[in-house]
Amino acid sequence: MKTSVYRKEHFNAAHRLYNKSWDDEKNERVFGKCSNPNFHGHNYELIVKLTGDVHPETGYVYDMKKLSDLIRDKVTNRFDHKNLNLDTEEFRDLNPTAENIARVIYDLLRGEIDGGLDLKITLYETERNYVEYPA
Amino acid sequence: MKTSVYRKEHFNAAHRLYNKSWDDEKNERVFGKCSNPNFHGHNYELIVKLTGDVHPETGYVYDMKKLSDLIRDKVTNRFDHKNLNLDTEEFRDLNPTAENIARVIYDLLRGEIDGGLDLKITLYETERNYVEYPA
Amino acid sequence: MKTSVYRKEHFNAAHRLYNKSWDDEKNERVFGKCSNPNFHGHNYELIVKLTGDVHPETGYVYDMKKLSDLIRDKVTNRFDHKNLNLDTEEFRDLNPTAENIARVIYDLLRGEIDGGLDLKITLYETERNYVEYPA
Amino acid sequence: MKTSVYRKEHFNAAHRLYNKSWDDEKNERVFGKCSNPNFHGHNYELIVKLTGDVHPETGYVYDMKKLSDLIRDKVTNRFDHKNLNLDTEEFRDLNPTAENIARVIYDLLRGEIDGGLDLKITLYETERNYVEYPA
Amino acid sequence: MKTSVYRKEHFNAAHRLYNKSWDDEKNERVFGKCSNPNFHGHNYELIVKLTGDVHPETGYVYDMKKLSDLIRDKVTNRFDHKNLNLDTEEFRDLNPTAENIARVIYDLLRGEIDGGLDLKITLYETERNYVEYPA
Amino acid sequence: MKTSVYRKEHFNAAHRLYNKSWDDEKNERVFGKCSNPNFHGHNYELIVKLTGDVHPETGYVYDMKKLSDLIRDKVTNRFDHKNLNLDTEEFRDLNPTAENIARVIYDLLRGEIDGGLDLKITLYETERNYVEYPA
Repeated sequence: MKTSVYRKEHFNAAHRLYNKSWDDEKNERVFGKCSNPNFHGHNYELIVKLTGDVHPETGYVYDMKKLSDLIRDKVTNRFDHKNLNLDTEEFRDLNPTAENIARVIYDLLRGEIDGGLDLKITLYETERNYVEYPA
Repeated sequence: MKTSVYRKEHFNAAHRLYNKSWDDEKNERVFGKCSNPNFHGHNYELIVKLTGDVHPETGYVYDMKKLSDLIRDKVTNRFDHKNLNLDTEEFRDLNPTAENIARVIYDLLRGEIDGGLDLKITLYETERNYVEYPA
Repeated sequence: MKTSVYRKEHFNAAHRLYNKSWDDEKNERVFGKCSNPNFHGHNYELIVKLTGDVHPETGYVYDMKKLSDLIRDKVTNRFDHKNLNLDTEEFRDLNPTAENIARVIYDLLRGEIDGGLDLKITLYETERNYVEYPA
Repeated sequence: MKTSVYRKEHFNAAHRLYNKSWDDEKNERVFGKCSNPNFHGHNYELIVKLTGDVHPETGYVYDMKKLSDLIRDKVTNRFDHKNLNLDTEEFRDLNPTAENIARVIYDLLRGEIDGGLDLKITLYETERNYVEYPA
Repeated sequence: MKTSVYRKEHFNAAHRLYNKSWDDEKNERVFGKCSNPNFHGHNYELIVKLTGDVHPETGYVYDMKKLSDLIRDKVTNRFDHKNLNLDTEEFRDLNPTAENIARVIYDLLRGEIDGGLDLKITLYETERNYVEYPA
Repeated sequence: MKTSVYRKEHFNAAHRLYNKSWDDEKNERVFGKCSNPNFHGHNYELIVKLTGDVHPETGYVYDMKKLSDLIRDKVTNRFDHKNLNLDTEEFRDLNPTAENIARVIYDLLRGEIDGGLDLKITLYETERNYVEYPA
């Protein structure tokens, strides 16, 4: 049977929900106050889950120190204290919903981690709204 | 791959664990202080999880504002500040254990949400006791 | 300079906000759904704070094991899984608001603890509503 | 002895730390990544504390429903999903540090609440950084 | 469809990450400060999850009081306020990583619980590092 | 009126409650399982509070980045992943109760921070046991 390990990190960012192919009126109708043209923001809590075998020599699925460093280098340094819409190439043309941010983080990390380990991303936008990818 | 979204809500209610087909002595033997005839109560934390595809136009699996409104209309308005045994038809003849409350909430919401989305209910009775339906 | 020590405990109870000298209509007008005649309930989180000098031999202001036992004997055994209005003498004639429950708990503990130690009670009725006595 | 009551609310906002009398280089030197010209954001957790006497008829220091409505009308409707620097008059010329936001919220509420009650604001910018005004 | 129930407990312990077949230099290179020869420690939060059918007479998957007692008898009495490396036979020759502790707890409980119920262990070593077994 | 700012940090350590002038039997009688000769451990959560005036140019009482660095340099680097009794000079002859650890941390930081700012330490040994110095 396999074991999962989880590492929790965080970043703070501004964003605006916005579909470029719609006019402002439709963006506001669909996204409400989340589409404020001047942006709002969140403390994002990010949980990275890896699932695999426990290595018999270390007793680790993955070294949590290395995972923490990897998340910092590939994810939180990129998004922390940024405006997701304006400051990042990932969301220049992609609506920064929690669902899309989680998938982007998955794609940023997937290539960095041994393919024998399953990867799952959980992202809290607020304490009461969060997402998981893949389900 | 699919994505899951979660919305957390809460309600406060009184209840008594009670099987109508047993006498009081057996109810107390099985359920202990949870079967106090004068009731006790909890702050219930409710998490509703939906799993499906991200809609390409909105970047949403489901609009969290609509989900929050739906939970309020169908669930928390019905149970908040109520005595589950006395004030609700759902638990007139059904023992209001966390397991049963979670299934009742599932049934109240299932018909309101597109069948293409998987639905899962997590219900915290206390910080240390909680249930999930379906598993 | 003095040091404060804190111990957190919890209990679950049913209650109804109710002023006996008012009719039901006025109780409902003032207390709203909190005055449901069939009761509702909460997971109460209780924090007991003692302030005094650190004893040079033990390094303790107070033994937390003894404080935990004292809270259980004097407070949580009395209120846990009870209906505050019906099952306790303290709230037979006193409205069980969080403010009044905190003062009752203070009075139950004050006589049990050396008068040289200041005592303060914090009571969470929900994560978002809580009280402190004395201020 | 007096009693304190607390109500916790939240809002999400974007901001940029910025002193208008300094050039961008000095702003960045002093405020670091918190001065990103494109803004970043937070989930602000706000706790409003009132201290006074328990009213003998209600058992309340203050009706928490009224306090919650007051905070919504005067504070969270004003700041939620806003860019504090661009969308609010309060921070057009005032640097939106947590310290300054807490004082502004104090000033917005102080006139709305009976002067016989002491008022204190706690504002969490993140789980690890928060402020209190007045101390 | 089946239902899951969860019970959360905790224990405090000292440990040192250490592979007996390596010398100290290699242990420190691999495990860093977690291999301090004089030990460090954690507040472990343990969540036990059982999945099965809701019994129609009780409305329970499992009696949480019995589960809590079982966890205390088989797990927390064994590990609480202990040095995992020195005081327990389970970790005399097994490196007490969170992954290995979770599997040991699984093995301690599996034989005590009806085989018709699935068992899963979640163990928090810190708020930001945790594991799950089986995945 | 003054403003308080708070910064939360954490460290993990092993310790044993022990009074050197007592024999083992008395240590165990007074401190119970907290006096296990092989040590146990905790995730300590540390909150540093500073109270003073808001600087009109920065809008800060204190730069949280500098406070975080100061706590790391003076406190958490010293205690994190250490055995307080064996690895630190501060607790070689001082019983490492939460009360004493809080005072030691106060003394480590007091000289590093402008005397015009009040300093207060809160230290969580567990979620349910914590202390504050000075009171």
